[in-house]
Amino acid sequence: MVLPLLTRIDHVGIACRDLDLAIGLYRATFGLEVVSLEVNQEQGVREAMLAVGPGAGTAGAYERPGYVQLLEPLAPDTPVGKFLDRRGEGIHHVGYGVSDISAALAAIGGTPGGSGTSGGGIRLIDKRPRHGSMGASIAFLHPADLGGVLTELVQLVSSP
Amino acid sequence: MVLPLLTRIDHVGIACRDLDLAIGLYRATFGLEVVSLEVNQEQGVREAMLAVGPGAGTAGAYERPGYVQLLEPLAPDTPVGKFLDRRGEGIHHVGYGVSDISAALAAIGGTPGGSGTSGGGIRLIDKRPRHGSMGASIAFLHPADLGGVLTELVQLVSSP
Repeated sequence: MVLPLLTRIDHVGIACRDLDLAIGLYRATFGLEVVSLEVNQEQGVREAMLAVGPGAGTAGAYERPGYVQLLEPLAPDTPVGKFLDRRGEGIHHVGYGVSDISAALAAIGGTPGGSGTSGGGIRLIDKRPRHGSMGASIAFLHPADLGGVLTELVQLVSSP
Repeated sequence: MVLPLLTRIDHVGIACRDLDLAIGLYRATFGLEVVSLEVNQEQGVREAMLAVGPGAGTAGAYERPGYVQLLEPLAPDTPVGKFLDRRGEGIHHVGYGVSDISAALAAIGGTPGGSGTSGGGIRLIDKRPRHGSMGASIAFLHPADLGGVLTELVQLVSSP
């Protein structure tokens, strides 16, 4: 394992039934603003990223904002739709920044593209990185191997 | 409301049945190290803070680490004990940094010490700040008013 593997808490993913209501709630309560709004068909969500922190407006080289990621399912039979059915609205996952997602997946689970778990032995939901919010490369790790925590790795488009 | 109200994602609180096992898992999987280990009798938890990010070792004025906060209940009839009974291990809450927690509580809910909700109308679990991890002043906001998300505000001991 190459240290430090995790560079930051990138975001907290929150499942909601109505994205516009949730955005309004976070704006009215905390003054958070939407910096990205997109539909991810592959993941079956409509989602908003709301920036948290001083880097939210004027990100410098040493500080990036964190994000509240609000997730509304596109249909009931999507992962987030099933989560809402089972557990109701609330925190869905946590996303950590990594500088090299392929290396991180190899260290944590199996080699990307391989079928085994040759690394840290954590089951990978995504053996290869896929498309995430704001152009990032992302991959999910299995909560059953991480104390019930659905964990996402995020490699930003342009790391400083 | 004074903006920006939230300065950072301070930590993700994770409920676990066995703190030592959970610490071992996060160390082995992600290389995270414990920077604080304490018992909070008031909250009924034994807890560990594991630093995430480049500030973990050499925090500068512009960057502080985020934390994974692992929480083991001291007894079944504590909030975290009941959470484990109800939902099992997993993400318990999210904590955001604020620069002035009393002002934040007044803006979000009611005036600290008051009985009403004169601000943002969010119910406050803690009307007054109390003692949190690593000497911070903390307060919880009610998940029923925040889309099912148990939300904590954190004012660090010494803000830069």
